[in-house]
Amino acid sequence: MKQFILIIIAVILCSAPSMAMDKVFNAKSYMLDNGLQIVVVENHRAPVITHMIWYRVGAADEPRGQSGIAHFLEHLMFKGQKHAVLGDLEAGEFSKIVRSLGGNDNAFTSQDFTAYFQSISNKHLERVMKMEAGRMRGMFIPQEGFVSEKKVIQEERRQRTDNDPRAQMSEQMREALFPNHPYSIPIIGWMHEIEGLKYQEVMDFYHKYYAPNNAVLIVSGDVSADQVFEIAKRTYGIIERSDMLERSWIKSPPFIAKTAISLEHPTIKEPVFRRSYRVPSANQSKQESLILEVLEDIIGGGSTSRLYKSLVVEQKIATNISLSYNSAAWDDATLSIAVNPASKEKIADVKAAIDNELRKIINDGISVKELSESIMRMQNNAIYARDSLTGPAMIIGYSLITGSSLDDIEHWPQQIESVTIEQIQEVTRKYLNPDVPYKTPPIDGVLLPKATGGNE
Amino acid sequence: MKQFILIIIAVILCSAPSMAMDKVFNAKSYMLDNGLQIVVVENHRAPVITHMIWYRVGAADEPRGQSGIAHFLEHLMFKGQKHAVLGDLEAGEFSKIVRSLGGNDNAFTSQDFTAYFQSISNKHLERVMKMEAGRMRGMFIPQEGFVSEKKVIQEERRQRTDNDPRAQMSEQMREALFPNHPYSIPIIGWMHEIEGLKYQEVMDFYHKYYAPNNAVLIVSGDVSADQVFEIAKRTYGIIERSDMLERSWIKSPPFIAKTAISLEHPTIKEPVFRRSYRVPSANQSKQESLILEVLEDIIGGGSTSRLYKSLVVEQKIATNISLSYNSAAWDDATLSIAVNPASKEKIADVKAAIDNELRKIINDGISVKELSESIMRMQNNAIYARDSLTGPAMIIGYSLITGSSLDDIEHWPQQIESVTIEQIQEVTRKYLNPDVPYKTPPIDGVLLPKATGGNE
Repeated sequence: MKQFILIIIAVILCSAPSMAMDKVFNAKSYMLDNGLQIVVVENHRAPVITHMIWYRVGAADEPRGQSGIAHFLEHLMFKGQKHAVLGDLEAGEFSKIVRSLGGNDNAFTSQDFTAYFQSISNKHLERVMKMEAGRMRGMFIPQEGFVSEKKVIQEERRQRTDNDPRAQMSEQMREALFPNHPYSIPIIGWMHEIEGLKYQEVMDFYHKYYAPNNAVLIVSGDVSADQVFEIAKRTYGIIERSDMLERSWIKSPPFIAKTAISLEHPTIKEPVFRRSYRVPSANQSKQESLILEVLEDIIGGGSTSRLYKSLVVEQKIATNISLSYNSAAWDDATLSIAVNPASKEKIADVKAAIDNELRKIINDGISVKELSESIMRMQNNAIYARDSLTGPAMIIGYSLITGSSLDDIEHWPQQIESVTIEQIQEVTRKYLNPDVPYKTPPIDGVLLPKATGGNE
Repeated sequence: MKQFILIIIAVILCSAPSMAMDKVFNAKSYMLDNGLQIVVVENHRAPVITHMIWYRVGAADEPRGQSGIAHFLEHLMFKGQKHAVLGDLEAGEFSKIVRSLGGNDNAFTSQDFTAYFQSISNKHLERVMKMEAGRMRGMFIPQEGFVSEKKVIQEERRQRTDNDPRAQMSEQMREALFPNHPYSIPIIGWMHEIEGLKYQEVMDFYHKYYAPNNAVLIVSGDVSADQVFEIAKRTYGIIERSDMLERSWIKSPPFIAKTAISLEHPTIKEPVFRRSYRVPSANQSKQESLILEVLEDIIGGGSTSRLYKSLVVEQKIATNISLSYNSAAWDDATLSIAVNPASKEKIADVKAAIDNELRKIINDGISVKELSESIMRMQNNAIYARDSLTGPAMIIGYSLITGSSLDDIEHWPQQIESVTIEQIQEVTRKYLNPDVPYKTPPIDGVLLPKATGGNE
């Protein structure tokens, strides 16, 4: 029976055209002498480019007690720079120039990385490369700028986290899921630690981690790879490499007791149930991450997925359910489920129904059809990703910066085909088994409207 | 009415004899030039002494990722020492000598401190002082001794923690109660971090914290204070002071969501309910700590306390309940409640009953009689403490080492009299209020027998 299933899968997959053997992005890569990795994805549909630089530093690299530095730096990188060769910019001038040239720019920070990008006409590529290279080592802000930007960040935290019970719940669930581990640190930082951050601490962090040999540069769009490599040599190439230690984060202790977190809040109108599991990332286990990606699609991928059909369509105990797994993490990844239960009283049923769907997969597996359709859907999505301008830079960036190779990214469609029904059962049994309480249990969270007249 | 109550209390308390004005221990203190604080409590009832040294270093001072060092060091201090003037000892020789002289010795480690003591005939005081001083800076063990002791400690952790669901629950509750804070680190260390500890890391920790100006020496028993100071000068006095930084620990972020931790385990026979609150220590708020001490006695102090009477005697929803608050912490203290519910089904009633007793105190206060009896009971206990040999050294040691002054300790019976009914209401409202969900909520823990056939 097992062999028979495999043959059927092979037939179905072979019916997908030669795509499966192609590389997804046909990216070209180059390494500067100073250690900067450069990847170019040519796409000549329109005369525009996306230029992105990814630094292998995020909130998880922050010294304990100094949370928020990585994100703070992301802000400061727009506040001025000085470089003898690459030029100086005043506070705000970077983005002003990009906009004046018809482009847009932004940046984002995660636990694992910090990235900066510009989307702009291809004729301005050299200009933005020069500016971006200039702030890699030349960021320069006065003390006053530091103090005022700290206020901006504290206000950001107030609005996005402290005034949002969902965000506070997320922070607390993350703390419970990653005890002792730097992934327990919120990216924006805790308010009291942002408040305490010193100018020199932020600068030390910048000088320690912002270096060509700790970064990946990605350019996608209407350029030739050779042209990008040439300009990169003249701009990024003049920055010296730094001594860089291997990333070494402290680990969580094992924990066997279940943790449930609950919050009643007046701004919550409908109950929310969340569950987060710790699972392997691509960096930790390539094959298991592929299996989890297929599993994510099958049990949580939209309105045809198992959980949606069971909880929303059939049992009507929830009005919505979503599941997310992102394999791109340096250390453990998380698999998270978010449910809108039909009512507060249905939360116990929701939990039981999720556990039940997991048991079904462990015990009965999935059908050949489910597997092949899921894989084909994911492969198709990979093809669509090619067509976007920013998409390829994003995918390549977060994959490379969290430890995947370019080869992994290019051959992902073939790799995903290797996932079997047995592997899906095994990975579900190993990481999501509701009947094995002595492995790292998931963290459950419940958000409820604030009941009038006291707490509970 | 308020004034009337205060007058009554004053009358009752004045009826207690002059004791209230005396010092509890009449301790004598002296400071060596190298910063070592020495306290002597003379007690000539029997020709024996307790000699204790307290170092202001514990698990909370450990570098992140190196949990267990403080406790590891406590073990290593018995494994050999070398000192040009004070002499050398082989592994195990310290305790062997103490025993051969008819005494006993031991040591203990907490989050805040590490302490070593010997109880022995007073004629051997100089001998033990010389040995103890010798290992303050002269601890010396070979690599092999380090490796073998690590195995001993790992076995200790296996037996006391990993094989005991109660201990595992305690660890996890502490992690939840002190997110980001070093009090979340278990004193014995996490197994994977003990495993990773390096010889040099442990030695660096020793050299950083073991110094006369980071220690308090206490001798109680049949000695004269002057004699102790004299011997101390000849022994401890020859050790040089070290550069010592102020203790500076990172803080927990505020958290507003409630956390409930539950564990089903086959070795648990009867359900257990626990609750832990973060409350001020004496070091943080002297007056609030005194109030909490009275509150501890009134609501949780034995079979006449409010919680016992309500839950065990009247409602019969629990077979036992205990409450503990220890004011001696450098940073936040915890107030913990442990209950044996009559059955698993009664756990919700137990929680509700505890909350209800707290509400009663907040709303109605306590009676004048309850307060005066409680204070008198506590004052009497302080007098009894005088009579013991080790008791005074313990009380003075953990108080001084966590930031109290000798004056605070000596005048505790008068200070405790200052606690008022209104203060008890206010402190209960501030820290233990079940109806204010937006302050640091307590952590609830439930231990249950493992149900057969799956989890939940």
